[in-house]
Amino acid sequence: MEDENTKKEQRHKKKMEKQKEKIDANIAAASEERGVSILLTGDGKGKTSSAFGMVLRALGYGYRVGVVQFIKGEQLSGEELYLKNNLPEVDFYQMGTGFTWDTQDQSGDIAAAEKTWAVVEPMLRDERYHLVVMDELTYMLSFKYLDEDKVLAAIKNRPKNQSVVVTGRGGGSAIRDLVDTVSEVKDIKHAYHSGVMARKGVDY
Amino acid sequence: MEDENTKKEQRHKKKMEKQKEKIDANIAAASEERGVSILLTGDGKGKTSSAFGMVLRALGYGYRVGVVQFIKGEQLSGEELYLKNNLPEVDFYQMGTGFTWDTQDQSGDIAAAEKTWAVVEPMLRDERYHLVVMDELTYMLSFKYLDEDKVLAAIKNRPKNQSVVVTGRGGGSAIRDLVDTVSEVKDIKHAYHSGVMARKGVDY
Repeated sequence: MEDENTKKEQRHKKKMEKQKEKIDANIAAASEERGVSILLTGDGKGKTSSAFGMVLRALGYGYRVGVVQFIKGEQLSGEELYLKNNLPEVDFYQMGTGFTWDTQDQSGDIAAAEKTWAVVEPMLRDERYHLVVMDELTYMLSFKYLDEDKVLAAIKNRPKNQSVVVTGRGGGSAIRDLVDTVSEVKDIKHAYHSGVMARKGVDY
Repeated sequence: MEDENTKKEQRHKKKMEKQKEKIDANIAAASEERGVSILLTGDGKGKTSSAFGMVLRALGYGYRVGVVQFIKGEQLSGEELYLKNNLPEVDFYQMGTGFTWDTQDQSGDIAAAEKTWAVVEPMLRDERYHLVVMDELTYMLSFKYLDEDKVLAAIKNRPKNQSVVVTGRGGGSAIRDLVDTVSEVKDIKHAYHSGVMARKGVDY
């Protein structure tokens, strides 16, 4: 029995060593140091909250952060309340009531999108920003509310050490091709399918 | 030309109305109000940062939050620094140096896992916690460092209004079956595959 345990422990040790080697090799192969561009997409839960987690991460090192939200309802969600009330050092802008999922006014939406773009565009030229979040930007591309070439060029030509995070479903293939990292959040199952209401402090 | 634009605008309006109807119907169908359990899994970027985004969300409403991390290296990451330095109101515990990806010591790891479980288990019985995050708990199940039945029962029997978030790859099918929401983060592409180093303030 003791032999059996020793063997098991050795097998485990080998497995862990192999896993560690693989991870180390991947990390060692990466050598370029610069800001990264990340697209968080897909139909699952956790795109916006993930972006806000990265905001926290950047703030942990005292970095300067900008957060611009393209589609938002009239009510502030928990993370927005927190940002407004507790993190005045974050430059935070919301398209606000100019655009919501309730809207059916295309020209008004385009004006609101352009106004919001005018806030984030200067951040993408300002190297003091370590991280710029463009929450739900993809919809502006899908609906053609913003010119795709203009948006992609601004992301591409941003300061070398600046990272950007874009969230939202869809957005077309051009932005996927441009960014360094694409994470797709897939909804495997969701509470509301079994009749549970969206939860304050978790879902909004 | 003006006619063309009007038609286009009408088509758009119809499309948006349909989308809104669908979303509204889904929300209306959900009627049960209680805490939710969420598993953030998959190989992609954004599981832990998403959990931390939900922490921010809950804090925005002044809710009480517990965060327990099962696998962590010796260096604090950005969001951990932020939590330690700026959010003393969050009950935060790390398994710490007892377990890292560098470990090849199974019995030491099991002891560390049990010690960490002893911190989070009382939170899962305490209704004052609105949100409990168990970061990278899945690995404790995959490696059989914690008893699966014990862990799942604690999650299942938690206070009605408490939400829990579990992160990590794998973890087996039982936890997937138990929780209300499963989001799988898929790595479509990742910066380090094109030679870009992990980025401080974004990746850690």
